[in-house]
Amino acid sequence: MKPPIVLLTDFGLQDHYVGVMKGVILSRVPEATFVDLTHEVSPQDVREGAYLLAVSYRYFPVGTIFLAVVDPGVGTERRALVIRTEAHFFVGPDNGLFTLVLKRSRTAEIRAVEVERFRLPEASFTFHGRDLFAPVAAEVLSGRPFEEFGPKISDPVLLEFSEPEPVPGGFRVPVLKVDRFGNLILNFSAEALSGRRFRVVVEGRRVPFVRTYAEAPEGEPLALIGSDGFLEIAVNRGSAARIFGNDPEILLLWE
Amino acid sequence: MKPPIVLLTDFGLQDHYVGVMKGVILSRVPEATFVDLTHEVSPQDVREGAYLLAVSYRYFPVGTIFLAVVDPGVGTERRALVIRTEAHFFVGPDNGLFTLVLKRSRTAEIRAVEVERFRLPEASFTFHGRDLFAPVAAEVLSGRPFEEFGPKISDPVLLEFSEPEPVPGGFRVPVLKVDRFGNLILNFSAEALSGRRFRVVVEGRRVPFVRTYAEAPEGEPLALIGSDGFLEIAVNRGSAARIFGNDPEILLLWE
Amino acid sequence: MKPPIVLLTDFGLQDHYVGVMKGVILSRVPEATFVDLTHEVSPQDVREGAYLLAVSYRYFPVGTIFLAVVDPGVGTERRALVIRTEAHFFVGPDNGLFTLVLKRSRTAEIRAVEVERFRLPEASFTFHGRDLFAPVAAEVLSGRPFEEFGPKISDPVLLEFSEPEPVPGGFRVPVLKVDRFGNLILNFSAEALSGRRFRVVVEGRRVPFVRTYAEAPEGEPLALIGSDGFLEIAVNRGSAARIFGNDPEILLLWE
Repeated sequence: MKPPIVLLTDFGLQDHYVGVMKGVILSRVPEATFVDLTHEVSPQDVREGAYLLAVSYRYFPVGTIFLAVVDPGVGTERRALVIRTEAHFFVGPDNGLFTLVLKRSRTAEIRAVEVERFRLPEASFTFHGRDLFAPVAAEVLSGRPFEEFGPKISDPVLLEFSEPEPVPGGFRVPVLKVDRFGNLILNFSAEALSGRRFRVVVEGRRVPFVRTYAEAPEGEPLALIGSDGFLEIAVNRGSAARIFGNDPEILLLWE
Repeated sequence: MKPPIVLLTDFGLQDHYVGVMKGVILSRVPEATFVDLTHEVSPQDVREGAYLLAVSYRYFPVGTIFLAVVDPGVGTERRALVIRTEAHFFVGPDNGLFTLVLKRSRTAEIRAVEVERFRLPEASFTFHGRDLFAPVAAEVLSGRPFEEFGPKISDPVLLEFSEPEPVPGGFRVPVLKVDRFGNLILNFSAEALSGRRFRVVVEGRRVPFVRTYAEAPEGEPLALIGSDGFLEIAVNRGSAARIFGNDPEILLLWE
Repeated sequence: MKPPIVLLTDFGLQDHYVGVMKGVILSRVPEATFVDLTHEVSPQDVREGAYLLAVSYRYFPVGTIFLAVVDPGVGTERRALVIRTEAHFFVGPDNGLFTLVLKRSRTAEIRAVEVERFRLPEASFTFHGRDLFAPVAAEVLSGRPFEEFGPKISDPVLLEFSEPEPVPGGFRVPVLKVDRFGNLILNFSAEALSGRRFRVVVEGRRVPFVRTYAEAPEGEPLALIGSDGFLEIAVNRGSAARIFGNDPEILLLWE
């Protein structure tokens, strides 16, 4: 049983783009299987893609190949990457999409793909997901020796993410991601709290720190450690984004 | 060939939540296959999920496992269930999501999952889809003896659904579900009509009872027996919900 | 390893319609695998479905079965088709959905399905995707001899598509499809340009003809040959549809 190819793109689901990528892979590896991580990354939002990859990969089997295409620079000179970490492979453009995966890996080996060798014969300039990255993922799945993909590199593009900003008594904490439920996932990890007592103030309003959504009254805001291990602002049976917007002032103040 | 795991959630497709559930299962059962029933249940709408499960399960192979997570009470004391019916398995929270499945089964056996035994080691309080229900579904797929999941129970949470309300000469009939085409699916089954003659009046306007959408003029409302076996208000090449809203007064009057 | 069944519908993903089609197929062919080309065809837009099929099929393995259901005439006398082209099969209603596939095939054999023989025992009048086309696709996958599906026909429904309209010095070019990124895909193929020099004028404004999105300044419109081989109007890191609408006046003028 081969491990799955996990796809993450900003292609959406109303067009044929995701489907034809799978077609290209199945034409080369008929027994390939797929998991769609998401295709609804906000168009061209490389940071959002980087976040979703980082909080997801460890739940997948050893050998899983992540085929990630959020690629506003398609057709330019930006490199194509294939990455091997402790347990997984990643294929996609060199534009920072793998920033958080690389930060979490100690042994990642990164290769710049020899584009002319792997792309489809009649490759377009605008759809490398189909014409380059899908064929490369198929080759990884087929077991091609990793060093054959191209030269090793050590200078991948890495993106900056907004970091917590010190304020008197604590931090102003930025939003990393707004999810479907309107939960605001913050760039402050459970570990960074390190057991200290604190209070959370959103737009001047203190919100209780709880374990589960249901601990706050219905419609009331709350803070908790979300399922990805980050501090999160939510509303029990409601949407924090609808109450506070997508980027409110959120203060974490030590007690 | 193992039967599929069929997923129904309110997680949507823009986040990684559905993907990581599949990753957790594939990490345990590499040959698992999946069908997405839907992940677009309205957030926290347990009734909608119950409807979709009830009208779908009989189309799936014997042994299919339905992994259903619409779970506003995640992290509270609500029980986790695994259910075995005549031909299928169901895994999910004990909040009424299986109400209609249980009503249609004569032999359903329900077990309350021993949570501590099956959840992931570092389980979150907010994402039991990934941390509890996915591992349980993987165990069902692996063939673990059913009695090992936990004690048998006989008091699952069951929800009330709006029922047809008697009026002079017939019934006022409630909407069960609005689908993507704007069809209004009503809580009145084909069997309940039992061959009697009737007329349908929507917001004071009589609509013809036909067999297919195309039998009414374009843009005109109609009533028919929909594909799930319920009375339905539709508009040929249009949307009944756009004309009448999602909850109009609908009368069924015997002739 | 069987080839995949590729699904294209206008059923959307919030209902159970797509899932139960897969259930019907898996009940007959447990080892069936699926690729979702898209289920977000605009409701009842047969032309859009025809376009997506035509630009996608060649990327899939030999033997792939395309199960395509955009079917506003469901339940009427319209025929059900199964088509065998050079390398693929197509199953769906006879309403023009296969127009562009048939135009590109020299050897297509078309059969009108014997509906009573293949539909589910309790078939509905409104959901042939589940009750007729899914069982037929399962039979094709099972290897049933092609001539058994029904009589050969030579008069499938074919749709007209808007064609480029001659104007002094060139053409006014219609939009074929607007994609998720707001790119306007035009009914003018790369081959039709045949190497001649030209300029593109959108709503009176000349836009540069480039190879990749990134060659224009951010936010600026451009024209290029898109990944499906058609002329396309786009905006670097933006949306052409947002600037120009979905159907602007686009002139292609020879130099």
